[in-house]
Parts: sequence; C-alpha cells; structure tokens
Amino acid sequence: MIKPDKIMQEFDLITKFFKPLTNKTINSHNLENDTAFIDLKQSEHLILSKDLFVEDVHFLKSDGAYKIASKLLLSNLSDLASSGAEPLYYMLGFSKTNDTDISFVKEFVKGLRDIQNKYNISLIGGDTVKSTKYFFSITVFGKTKKHKFLTRNQAQKGDLIYVSGDIGDAYFGLKINQQKKLNLNKDYQYLLDRYFFPNPRINLGKELIKKNLSKCAIDVSDGLLSDLNHICVNSNLTANIFLEQIPISKQLKRILGKKIDNEYLNIISAGDDYELIFTINPKDQKKIINLANFLNIKLTNIGYFTGCNDKLSLVNLFNNNQEFKKIKINKYGYEH
Amino acid sequence: MIKPDKIMQEFDLITKFFKPLTNKTINSHNLENDTAFIDLKQSEHLILSKDLFVEDVHFLKSDGAYKIASKLLLSNLSDLASSGAEPLYYMLGFSKTNDTDISFVKEFVKGLRDIQNKYNISLIGGDTVKSTKYFFSITVFGKTKKHKFLTRNQAQKGDLIYVSGDIGDAYFGLKINQQKKLNLNKDYQYLLDRYFFPNPRINLGKELIKKNLSKCAIDVSDGLLSDLNHICVNSNLTANIFLEQIPISKQLKRILGKKIDNEYLNIISAGDDYELIFTINPKDQKKIINLANFLNIKLTNIGYFTGCNDKLSLVNLFNNNQEFKKIKINKYGYEH
Repeated sequence: MIKPDKIMQEFDLITKFFKPLTNKTINSHNLENDTAFIDLKQSEHLILSKDLFVEDVHFLKSDGAYKIASKLLLSNLSDLASSGAEPLYYMLGFSKTNDTDISFVKEFVKGLRDIQNKYNISLIGGDTVKSTKYFFSITVFGKTKKHKFLTRNQAQKGDLIYVSGDIGDAYFGLKINQQKKLNLNKDYQYLLDRYFFPNPRINLGKELIKKNLSKCAIDVSDGLLSDLNHICVNSNLTANIFLEQIPISKQLKRILGKKIDNEYLNIISAGDDYELIFTINPKDQKKIINLANFLNIKLTNIGYFTGCNDKLSLVNLFNNNQEFKKIKINKYGYEH
Repeated sequence: MIKPDKIMQEFDLITKFFKPLTNKTINSHNLENDTAFIDLKQSEHLILSKDLFVEDVHFLKSDGAYKIASKLLLSNLSDLASSGAEPLYYMLGFSKTNDTDISFVKEFVKGLRDIQNKYNISLIGGDTVKSTKYFFSITVFGKTKKHKFLTRNQAQKGDLIYVSGDIGDAYFGLKINQQKKLNLNKDYQYLLDRYFFPNPRINLGKELIKKNLSKCAIDVSDGLLSDLNHICVNSNLTANIFLEQIPISKQLKRILGKKIDNEYLNIISAGDDYELIFTINPKDQKKIINLANFLNIKLTNIGYFTGCNDKLSLVNLFNNNQEFKKIKINKYGYEH
C-alpha cells in the first residue's frame, strides 16, 4: 500500500517544484496525467534526443544542484543544436536519494528555470523515483522544417571543416573543478563556467540550415577528435586538421603559456565543449564570415575533408603545415 | 581521452544489439546521430510518456533481463493505453554495470524485440551509460487524433466506473516472485506471468475514443484505489465502489479460497495490474458489453461517481451492498 506520507512527498515534489516549470502549457496537462502531448505542422519534423546523467560519472554531488541541472539541460539542448532544431519542450526523469532536501530541489529547479527562460522552453512531463545515487534523464524536443536537419553523414569531399567558439575550455574547467580551489582568478573562473554552463549553439544550427550553408554537423561532447571521427566514419571521408588553427580562448592561452604546444592533443581529445563542428562548401567561406558577424560568435576553419583511400577513414593532423600525426579510424573508433 | 576499448564496447552495444531494434526506420538515423525525428499529421497529437526504472526499487537483477525489459516496455505502453494512443516508437536509456555481460544484453534485447513485434513499434534513439546499479529510462511515443485523448479529469457525476481484465493478479504475482519458489503450479505461474508481462490495453483505449464511449481513463499502476483517487481529485468527484464487483481471476480465487474476503483491501491497494479504469455514461452500458465481446476482454462495472459534498473527495467502499469504509481523499492522497 502506498503510504500517505510517501504520496505527500511525491506530490509536493511534483506540484510545488516541477509543475511551475511547465509554464502552464496545456501540453503538460499540469503534470496530472501519465502522458503529455505535442502538436506539429505537417511541414515540420519533431527532433528528439535523450540523455542519461549519473552521479560520479557525469557529475559530482558536490558540484551543487544548480550547476548539475544547468549542464543537464544545456548539454541536451546542444544535441538539438547539432541537428539545427529549434527547442520546444523537455521531459525530466528525476531520482531523489534519502538525503535529498528541499534546498537541493530548489536549486535544481532554479537551474532548470534559468535555462528554460533563456531558450524559451518548458517542462511537459517526466517521472520521479527513489534511488541510492542521483541520476537524471532528459528527453528534449525541438523542431525543424521537414527534411531540413543537420546530420553526421552529409559531409562532402572538399568541404571545409569549421568549429564554433573555443575548444578546450571545458577540459581545463573540469581540471579546475577537480582541484576544488578557492578564490579563483578571472581566467580560472571563466574556464570553470565554460565547463558547467556550455553554450548550445542553437542559433548557429538554425542559421546554417536557413541559409543553406551546411547539411552536416555534430556537437563536441566526447571531444573534437572523437566527434570529428563520427563525421569521417558516417560520411566516409578523411579529415585534415591544422592544429594551430584550432580556436583556443585567450583565457586558456594565458593560463597555459608556452605549455600550449604540449596540450593540443589533450585539448582535441577532451570533451564537454558543446561547440558545433560543421562542414561547408569552400565557395561559402565569405558567407560564414558574415554569419559569424551576424551571430557574434567565433567560427573557425580548422581543416578540410578529402576522400577515403582505403577502407579506413583517417584524421591527418598537421602542425606548422607539416603532417604531424595520422590517426586511423576504423568502425570501432580511432587508433594512434 | 576516450580509450579505443571503451569506444568498442559502446559501439558494439549500440550497433550489434540496439541498432537492429530500430527496424530500419529512418526516424532513428541508424542510431548514428544524437537525435531522432518524428513526423505527424496536422490532425494528430503526439502522445508522450517517460518512466524511470531502478534496480531494487522497480525490479531485481535476479528477475532476469528478459522479464525486466518486457515489463519496462509494457508498463510504458500502458501509459499510452490510458490516453487512448496508438504506439509508434520509443527511446531507451540503458545503464550497464561492471558485470553486464553479453548474455544479459541479448536477453534484454530479446525482451524488447518480442514486445516491439507484438505492438508494432520500434526503437528510435536513446543513451547508454555506466553505473553501479542498473537503471533504465523509457520515453514512449504514440498518436491520437487531435483533441481525442483520455485524461484523468474528464469524469462526470453519474458516470459508471469500469475496469478491464482482473485486479490483484500482479499483487499476488509479486509475492510469488519474492518467495522464489521452484516448480510453480499453473495458477501460480499465471499470476507470476501477469506480474512480469502486463497487458497494456491499447485497443481498449483506442476503441473507447473511436466509439465516443469515454473521455476519462487511467491505468492501474499504483493500485486501483490510488489511481481511482487521481480521477476523483482531478475530476472533483466521489467514487462509490462495490468490493464484490471487483474482477478477480479464477486463478487468484482458487489460490485465495475463503481468505479472499480479507484480501480485498490489499488487492485494491496493490499496484502493477496495468489494467484500465475508465468511466462511461450509464446509457452506454450495452455498448460496453458489445465492446468487451468485440475485443474479447473482461470489462466490469465496479461502481459509479457522485458529486463531492465537501472539499474532500471520497471513495466509499461497499460490501454486500452495505457501506463498509469511507476513504477520504485530499490533495495529498488518501486517509483511512
């Protein structure tokens, strides 16, 4: 038998804390039904992504509920960005543990609320359970015009490879977080924030489709090399990457100083940047400069695709315009 | 840096085991993108539900992967049934632990496959993570005609309360499972199967809408009383329930024998039946008899709704036509 106090807690969690996140959209049925609904025009695709986040794997409890919730939602929105979709709604799977208190839930909800407001989305459903460790699941919903989305398998031979923003901030931000230092200087704080509050490139994804500039993109979640790998395998191409062209923030440059040359391989192998890698036809280079100005973001050409000579795809890394390292990619991943 | 062997395992899990579950629908992009997509007619709603399942809370590892996966998907389909939706797709969040071996994954996939085939659905996306304990998340997608779905808040004063199938089998099946007995007789095996393989009433939900017989339904997941409670609160009504009319399977009757009178309160308080409670106008009683014949399922009238006299909703339980117990329901749940 379900005990009244269990119901009360569950009820409170849902009606006091999660229901306000529905923004009163009728699609959520006030979280009073087991189901929600979404409508769509015949000319639209609904774009979906689902992710799981596990304590001690994807986050630490000590990160705090606000940062955990923010990153949860932002990294899922980045999946929508990589498809060029406009975000609409999300569903939340929330596990509470024996020591989940009201302040944790409040901070968690505040984190979600701030992201919702920024990206104009709302909660439409989900589930709450009890568990020994925290884990969360998000399903995000966005839309694109029909047949107008970015995928990993549509890069062409000769395409230029671009990346948004800076690469490596999150890699160093994670390191800073692990050191649990107090009184960080501005540069350190910047990198830490980049780790916890990635910037899903929603507008970039949308504009790439709208302006017919790209059909192929992926977000950098596992690492520049690893995610580029997916494009190579799925589009059957070899990527040629110029290490010095990889965009590094001035904050990270200041911190690394001369050590930066030794860090390039780490920087392109680490994840959590949530920038977009996308590919364009060389004739559209000028349009990309205009787009960067229009969106006020950095868009950097880091290399180009050539055909695949053998059955293995490749990433060729160049340093000072010299071939520096060949990374063979097979269907299982890459080998040095 | 992501190590090749980690990628290989992840890759195998997805391409060898989960990709075949996509049934080659293009909506899944072969699980090669972070996103999937769904199309919908302008005249349709997409109906969504998301659930979390946690080891030692919702299932035991010793239940075996086939049963765990089956129940996971079936209970989610029951949410779609309670809305009257036709199932389309699902997304899977899968956590593997250090001791997840190929045989576990194979059995898990076989469980999903069998349910997919029965309900003509396919996998379109998801996520895999590592965790210390198993937990899974399912998001299911179905469709209804626009504005044609069943909800908890549309019951009317005077409506008759119906329930599909039998109540209590899962309650006793859970008990049998906990006892871990070998060599079960047929009745015990039947109840155990009812616990692990619930029967989401998809066709019933669809027909109730199609034939304009009901606007209000819920599936029995927490227990007949608890789920009826949701209708009472959301529709602002009092439910009058006749205990003897609650449908009990002949298997459970044989096992309980004369003890059945003492078990009614347990039977209506236990969950996991995944039958539908739905409400109809008394004038449509004959049509429900026809529908039961048409669908070849048991549909039983167990009571009726009256208005709410005070601010608290009520469930009045009757035994031998005598009022037997009043159960007050407030917004936090029910009290005896």
